[in-house]
Amino acid sequence: MNGLPARATVREVGLRDGLQSIATVLPTERKREWLRDAVAAGQREIEVGSFVPSRLLPQMADTAEVLAYAKTLPGLVASVLVPNLKGAERALEGDADLMILPLSASHAHSLANLRKTPDEVIAELARIRAARDASGRKTLIEGGVGTAFGCTLQGAVEPAEVLRLMQALLDAGADRVSLADTVGYADPLSVSRLFEQALKIAGDRFCCGHFHDTRGLALANVLAAAQLGVTRFDASLAGIGGCPHAPGASGNASTEDLGFMLGAMGIDTGLDMAALLALRAKVAGWLQGEQTNGALWRAGLPKTFRPVTPTAATAH
Amino acid sequence: MNGLPARATVREVGLRDGLQSIATVLPTERKREWLRDAVAAGQREIEVGSFVPSRLLPQMADTAEVLAYAKTLPGLVASVLVPNLKGAERALEGDADLMILPLSASHAHSLANLRKTPDEVIAELARIRAARDASGRKTLIEGGVGTAFGCTLQGAVEPAEVLRLMQALLDAGADRVSLADTVGYADPLSVSRLFEQALKIAGDRFCCGHFHDTRGLALANVLAAAQLGVTRFDASLAGIGGCPHAPGASGNASTEDLGFMLGAMGIDTGLDMAALLALRAKVAGWLQGEQTNGALWRAGLPKTFRPVTPTAATAH
Repeated sequence: MNGLPARATVREVGLRDGLQSIATVLPTERKREWLRDAVAAGQREIEVGSFVPSRLLPQMADTAEVLAYAKTLPGLVASVLVPNLKGAERALEGDADLMILPLSASHAHSLANLRKTPDEVIAELARIRAARDASGRKTLIEGGVGTAFGCTLQGAVEPAEVLRLMQALLDAGADRVSLADTVGYADPLSVSRLFEQALKIAGDRFCCGHFHDTRGLALANVLAAAQLGVTRFDASLAGIGGCPHAPGASGNASTEDLGFMLGAMGIDTGLDMAALLALRAKVAGWLQGEQTNGALWRAGLPKTFRPVTPTAATAH
Repeated sequence: MNGLPARATVREVGLRDGLQSIATVLPTERKREWLRDAVAAGQREIEVGSFVPSRLLPQMADTAEVLAYAKTLPGLVASVLVPNLKGAERALEGDADLMILPLSASHAHSLANLRKTPDEVIAELARIRAARDASGRKTLIEGGVGTAFGCTLQGAVEPAEVLRLMQALLDAGADRVSLADTVGYADPLSVSRLFEQALKIAGDRFCCGHFHDTRGLALANVLAAAQLGVTRFDASLAGIGGCPHAPGASGNASTEDLGFMLGAMGIDTGLDMAALLALRAKVAGWLQGEQTNGALWRAGLPKTFRPVTPTAATAH
């Protein structure tokens, strides 16, 4: 098996993509504990929340406070999701290390979800870039192209359109771009084909694959992307999250299963898997009544698994 | 992504590996209905049971009757598991199309589970081959090397030992061989490495990969093997089964998720996915109270999934 990277980062999105999709509102103190334990388990990149109006997502109302705490954790790259310029201004105010602007490649999904066309989102990114540059902050800007493999509303999304939008995000001032299979429509072959083109366009500004496990293929899709040398994947502890269009469906790839897969293949993730599983158990306890996912937590690590000790070198 | 085959077979093992691992004893009439519906959904290879003493596995007590029914279904390759010569004699009596003799590459697991060393199992295969040849039956003999990636008792299992045993099975008269990750210790890279060697040794007599989803990697492991051109994978409807060493752990790869992954990549499986999902719902209903697995059934097929119509050509 060729092309696998020597190191990879599992970027935690459970505190954002996970928590925003479930009913439980986790108290700020527990989010702090989650962050603290995650960093102790070797996680170095965490999406800590979303700067959306709190009337829309009460789960994210404390994002500024959580971000401020995350900034105190040494070595942590703290990112936030920002839906628009207003959110970006809050991210800059909080000195986030990274802000992620989602764009939906499905025009139908974009209009329904963001009430903007994809090209209007690109114009917003240009305004965000201007605001960032004027602010003097070092906050990086990531353009995340979602529904990149199709969506429940529109059905197919043309790869050419996904790539056009990705190029447009870069042209508008995104520091980097990522691709997301928002609703679990991707398969390993479609991932391989689209990511290969994306890497040609964005080079090392292509930064991350985000795969939902809606139909069980998240880890196989990660494998397909990893074989192209992609080194960063979003995942959610306990696989929390879900799909608003498919009640009961799994959420993101689960952090612990993904960390296990990569680590078992000898890819250095910097994760302390035992500590991560302990955190998984804790968070699942906080979220009782919510659906959690993933398989590793039941079976535990194989006897043959060689633990990887978190090292500063993996905080890349 | 290179190496993917144009066609592949999802071999159903739910009626054997699945049912033997759960408490519910499915009545014979329901097994018949399952077989009938599975064939109607395009499944062409099904492991219908196991010729073990019924005091050990009451779930398998009706295997002769189920096999007799399976033999009436046109186009179906009906296989049975046989633990020894005695089981093989029953398989020959029932004119099974294929009998599978399991061998555990972990000596500790082999002694604990089969009360034989791996080499004693190979001697048994030679006796089975002689019995088959004397019987005049066309029943094929498959040697299935289990715990090929390690086991819970012994820990590591050396790939060289797995390959030695596979070669010995062929030498002793197995028509074909397969590899199984019995307890979910494999990862895509270890699969790729071991299967590459296995294919060199066995060539087109290497017939199947059997991956448990104990730690969530079954589909990624299938992907790794499929990239080497492997065209047959065991799977269990609703992912039933489990791992005796890890209570609550997932069983086999789920037939419907695997069929979806392969079909989405344009690999012809001959499966009618809608019919398969309907059967999944029916079987899950019969098994209420038992743990079922898999993700596709919750979310349904993507709008963009192009159905594959079962064809005679795919009954390979």
